[in-house]
Amino acid sequence: VTGSAARWELHPDRALPAEPGVRALAREIYASVADLPIISMHGHVDAGELDRDERFGDPAQVLIVPDHYLLRMLVSSGVPLEALGVASRDPAAWHETDPRAIFRRFAERWHLFRGTPTRFWLEHVLVDVFGVRDRLSAATADAAFEQIAEVLARDDHRPLALLDRFGIEVLATTDPASDDLAHHHRLHARGWSGRIVPTFRPDALLAVDAPGWSAEVDALGRASGTDVGDYAGFLAAIRQRRAAFVAAGATASDHGTPLTGTELLDAADAARIFDDARVGRVTRAGADAFAGHMLHVMAQMSTEDGLVMQLHPGVLRNHDPGVHARFGPDVGYDIPVASEFTRALRPLLTALGHHPGLRMILFTVDEDVYSRELAPLAGVYPAVLLGAPWWFLDAPDAMRRAREAVTETAGFYNTSGFVDDTRAFFSIPARHDLARRTDAGHLARLVAEHRLDMDEALQTARDLVSGLPAAAYTRTVAEVPRGGDAA
Amino acid sequence: VTGSAARWELHPDRALPAEPGVRALAREIYASVADLPIISMHGHVDAGELDRDERFGDPAQVLIVPDHYLLRMLVSSGVPLEALGVASRDPAAWHETDPRAIFRRFAERWHLFRGTPTRFWLEHVLVDVFGVRDRLSAATADAAFEQIAEVLARDDHRPLALLDRFGIEVLATTDPASDDLAHHHRLHARGWSGRIVPTFRPDALLAVDAPGWSAEVDALGRASGTDVGDYAGFLAAIRQRRAAFVAAGATASDHGTPLTGTELLDAADAARIFDDARVGRVTRAGADAFAGHMLHVMAQMSTEDGLVMQLHPGVLRNHDPGVHARFGPDVGYDIPVASEFTRALRPLLTALGHHPGLRMILFTVDEDVYSRELAPLAGVYPAVLLGAPWWFLDAPDAMRRAREAVTETAGFYNTSGFVDDTRAFFSIPARHDLARRTDAGHLARLVAEHRLDMDEALQTARDLVSGLPAAAYTRTVAEVPRGGDAA
Amino acid sequence: VTGSAARWELHPDRALPAEPGVRALAREIYASVADLPIISMHGHVDAGELDRDERFGDPAQVLIVPDHYLLRMLVSSGVPLEALGVASRDPAAWHETDPRAIFRRFAERWHLFRGTPTRFWLEHVLVDVFGVRDRLSAATADAAFEQIAEVLARDDHRPLALLDRFGIEVLATTDPASDDLAHHHRLHARGWSGRIVPTFRPDALLAVDAPGWSAEVDALGRASGTDVGDYAGFLAAIRQRRAAFVAAGATASDHGTPLTGTELLDAADAARIFDDARVGRVTRAGADAFAGHMLHVMAQMSTEDGLVMQLHPGVLRNHDPGVHARFGPDVGYDIPVASEFTRALRPLLTALGHHPGLRMILFTVDEDVYSRELAPLAGVYPAVLLGAPWWFLDAPDAMRRAREAVTETAGFYNTSGFVDDTRAFFSIPARHDLARRTDAGHLARLVAEHRLDMDEALQTARDLVSGLPAAAYTRTVAEVPRGGDAA
Repeated sequence: VTGSAARWELHPDRALPAEPGVRALAREIYASVADLPIISMHGHVDAGELDRDERFGDPAQVLIVPDHYLLRMLVSSGVPLEALGVASRDPAAWHETDPRAIFRRFAERWHLFRGTPTRFWLEHVLVDVFGVRDRLSAATADAAFEQIAEVLARDDHRPLALLDRFGIEVLATTDPASDDLAHHHRLHARGWSGRIVPTFRPDALLAVDAPGWSAEVDALGRASGTDVGDYAGFLAAIRQRRAAFVAAGATASDHGTPLTGTELLDAADAARIFDDARVGRVTRAGADAFAGHMLHVMAQMSTEDGLVMQLHPGVLRNHDPGVHARFGPDVGYDIPVASEFTRALRPLLTALGHHPGLRMILFTVDEDVYSRELAPLAGVYPAVLLGAPWWFLDAPDAMRRAREAVTETAGFYNTSGFVDDTRAFFSIPARHDLARRTDAGHLARLVAEHRLDMDEALQTARDLVSGLPAAAYTRTVAEVPRGGDAA
Repeated sequence: VTGSAARWELHPDRALPAEPGVRALAREIYASVADLPIISMHGHVDAGELDRDERFGDPAQVLIVPDHYLLRMLVSSGVPLEALGVASRDPAAWHETDPRAIFRRFAERWHLFRGTPTRFWLEHVLVDVFGVRDRLSAATADAAFEQIAEVLARDDHRPLALLDRFGIEVLATTDPASDDLAHHHRLHARGWSGRIVPTFRPDALLAVDAPGWSAEVDALGRASGTDVGDYAGFLAAIRQRRAAFVAAGATASDHGTPLTGTELLDAADAARIFDDARVGRVTRAGADAFAGHMLHVMAQMSTEDGLVMQLHPGVLRNHDPGVHARFGPDVGYDIPVASEFTRALRPLLTALGHHPGLRMILFTVDEDVYSRELAPLAGVYPAVLLGAPWWFLDAPDAMRRAREAVTETAGFYNTSGFVDDTRAFFSIPARHDLARRTDAGHLARLVAEHRLDMDEALQTARDLVSGLPAAAYTRTVAEVPRGGDAA
Repeated sequence: VTGSAARWELHPDRALPAEPGVRALAREIYASVADLPIISMHGHVDAGELDRDERFGDPAQVLIVPDHYLLRMLVSSGVPLEALGVASRDPAAWHETDPRAIFRRFAERWHLFRGTPTRFWLEHVLVDVFGVRDRLSAATADAAFEQIAEVLARDDHRPLALLDRFGIEVLATTDPASDDLAHHHRLHARGWSGRIVPTFRPDALLAVDAPGWSAEVDALGRASGTDVGDYAGFLAAIRQRRAAFVAAGATASDHGTPLTGTELLDAADAARIFDDARVGRVTRAGADAFAGHMLHVMAQMSTEDGLVMQLHPGVLRNHDPGVHARFGPDVGYDIPVASEFTRALRPLLTALGHHPGLRMILFTVDEDVYSRELAPLAGVYPAVLLGAPWWFLDAPDAMRRAREAVTETAGFYNTSGFVDDTRAFFSIPARHDLARRTDAGHLARLVAEHRLDMDEALQTARDLVSGLPAAAYTRTVAEVPRGGDAA
């Protein structure tokens, strides 16, 4: 326990179980994986930032303005987004441009984050990466700001250098389907091939009733050099982009659309919906049918090119349309809704759930679905793995609940290991560290309750950090069909 | 551990975590808040009982007949409501009138309550308030009855005296919109202004397809002295009653209707549904639309008069219509159903979720909604706070789960503190005590896991008991718009 | 903790809480019930196997091929069902027939089961029943196979002998409504009356839109000797079979159909749907209405013949139709869906929820429903009890969650005690043992937190093992109406 007067420090046992016997086991398990390299296969670091490899901006621009966990909590207490430096799309509107003022508004509300993972991550980042010496408060805000700014100015804290400093073995970005991947190409040319890889995200192409859809299809046409005037051309263009992503090192696709079903349409029906949508006449039912159809088509393409599918549905994006109009997406206004996978995935899994070329990783923000649907599905279909607790659930108590809800049905080996899913570059080590601590605590309890032997716990902990994510995010192409006698 | 032979006593560590290290921390946290005054801002104590300030009735009438937690458990074991002293509306039907017999039926079934909060509350009440010396059983029932009756007969155990004895700083009752508030006026005249306050509950006015709706509207007309012949008059009458409640000290409104949506109707559409309903021709769809519309209108009025809105939807009332016909409401037959807030509240929050004059406190009895919808909503909208675990969830394990599900997304400071929500006057201290113990346990675990410093835990515990409920239930009118730089 | 090199042993404290103080209490509670006889009132052991009482087959046929928990986990890792000895319905298709090869495929994937109840049960069975000396692995597979085979060959390990060896006081099988019960009659003739009893399962008769329905009705007609040409005959035939089951010792019926409602139809409407279905013209809506109606009718019949109704809806059976076509049901492809009881059961409970002749035991695989609907229903309706955590939830962490979610609302005495629900004969003691350990842990925590006295915990533990299941599964006929003054 660190009193407020003492020097700010990270306790070596933080986030390990309190009971001394379990903690001793957890310490041993955690110690065995604490320093393993980070495999970061699902995140939102900007490829351009890596390519440019310039020094990071000021503390507010690095730690606060882009972090929607942080923004939303401050907004909930009554601080407007403008006051946190988020620029309105209305050029006449004011927003705070003084980074010290932004940082101060955050620091003096440090108490709001008690009990949240943001608190845990930032404590780790501020103390461990930036060497901040005093717990945040109105009184310590300016000194902390100076300390962070001083570290950010160092040449050895530019993005690519941090990959080494942070022990990141591989980092996947997330990129729109029509991205030209120029940043990735340049990074590869400079020797980062295989270490920084893109992820294929076609969401914008699959929501045919979204306002910007047709423009997205046009962009796809340009990026692919393919005529997207009809459905066949649309599919050909998607195939071209997938191939381009694979050539640039991508191992996975990423799907954040609502999961309304996965029924395959007749090609003629799909083509008709596509044509209707291109002239802005699609119905909601048609759009849902097309989205479900295309998810199935994406799975078919995965069996050809080996891209691992990541599905994370169940979030109503931009809950407040007024905020969205003024500030755009990703400022904290995405709210989960109830999710259903069993019926929605049935057509897809019936067709491809045993195909050796398909691997799907499922995520949820609806906890009841863990034991009800996700663990049972992953516990039988070879194609299905369970992803890490996602978004609001990427937190120590929620991670513990996820392991407890999932493991008894799906075991550890139908899960894909931790992904950090973050835009907050500096928090990557903190997030992986917290996941390792939480899993160590879960395994330690199983050992303490004589439900697992210690050698098994140690091997499982290592697999969760290294073997499972590496295997889960390896393309399936050229794989021997799973099955047979190999362990 | 108290053996059955020993004198009945309350263990000082009851409901604190078992692990010795965590318990030591929890003891310290609990001790720091154990004696703070009780702020009871949502309850169902009868204002008339306070106004009359007469001695309470016999033990059965005080502890058993009005407590639906207790009735339902005894009914589930096969004891009919009649045998527990609940009078049927059929005047010819028998019901037990011997309080000793009623108490005995309860006492000899004490084992049914093992593991329930009713057991915890009653143990506290019987030992601490009434000085009962032996654990309840068939053998000890009569002695306990006498002991309770003896205390109830004391002059210093009349309702208003108990406010002091129990350390209740403020007590809110819940009152129908058309209540004349005469009891409150008399209490205020006698100096209880600000200490006993009403709460505005308009549920009966918003369900336009309920059998008694039109009579309720007429009652509203009389209470407000307003012509409720049309929709405009209906709104004017509601405004009048809200103003009357505010004048009588009310700080909040209370809404227990189903949450079907919050879309604002055109005034003409609302007026047409109102007119249809007045002549008994409303459709179910019309009734749902009107209910959602009126919830939105209530929020608009809150931005004018500052009443804090409490929403607790998701309960199917009077599940057995036959029981309802014979015994009326509130005898244990209300059963929860699945709840949805994200989509239902979207229109209201889009319009008013950032309005400095609106504060909404959300409750649920569907646990999955905590982490899926409630914490994400409260964690971004300034207008939204999360209420205490409600009804069936007002129990130590459920409270712990609620903190664990909510805190990582919404923190502590988007919650409103504990409310006891009880008709059982004597259990008020027990309920607040249990909540304080449970929160102390939660905070102690965070400290033990080095996720929170001890000084922060102590401050948070105090805020949960005092600062947060006081702030949450203060009217918003004349408040400076939230935001700005004040911490 | 057993290292991999050490002799495989069962730790006496396995699955008890880790904290030493709680464990000490849990040990004492567990010890008091560890050796009580097993009451197994809901399972899927084959009556024919008991009747024939022959030696069991080889280790693969006994432990692997019939166990869908085990099959599904191996399938999820890529091992095809064929390779596990499951025969395809296509006679030309290969399947593994070498039991050693099947066992080896399982043993070398032992790590997949870490953290699952299958691991716990099998460890118990392999060490305790079969005396296997080394933890399973590729290296130890053959020796374990030999050891198991040696024990299976012993005369004292035939099915009926195991009833004594395992301490099984009573064992209920599950049998289709049109079963002739010949096995049960023979067992009764040999003195097993009352110890091995059938359970009436009419599912196949109630799904009028299922492909084989009409054939099932014909079978019912033959078994009952009743003309099933119309709805009245159908009901008469069901009554005849229920009576036959009662005569053969049955105490319960078992209902695994979807729960779409329980509204009673007019007899004429029911008859018309029946007639339509007999000629294959039923609609989905008609089928749902008929299923709900018949569930209500089954409850009416229960009030006449006293069969206890067990309901376990909420599972989408045979999720992959291709697997179902090739391998049939019960190979691991049943996946839960969201469940609703409050509205669905309302008509039935309104009519019969207080009838002294009805007892319903509710099961779920949708955890959110525990605290939201099941505990509130069981906590008021005398007819309703809560069953044990079912299927995927029959596991230590899930059982603990169930007790924590249910007890605070429904107590212990509205639950029915543990049922093993298993086809895996050899795992029956392991499953009951695990449930006893888990309940001991839950009770010990309540004692350690001073929420329960130790003498109460000991009595409750015994009731959960003996009194409650015995009472729950006793036919209600000739019972005195519940209520009155008896404790």
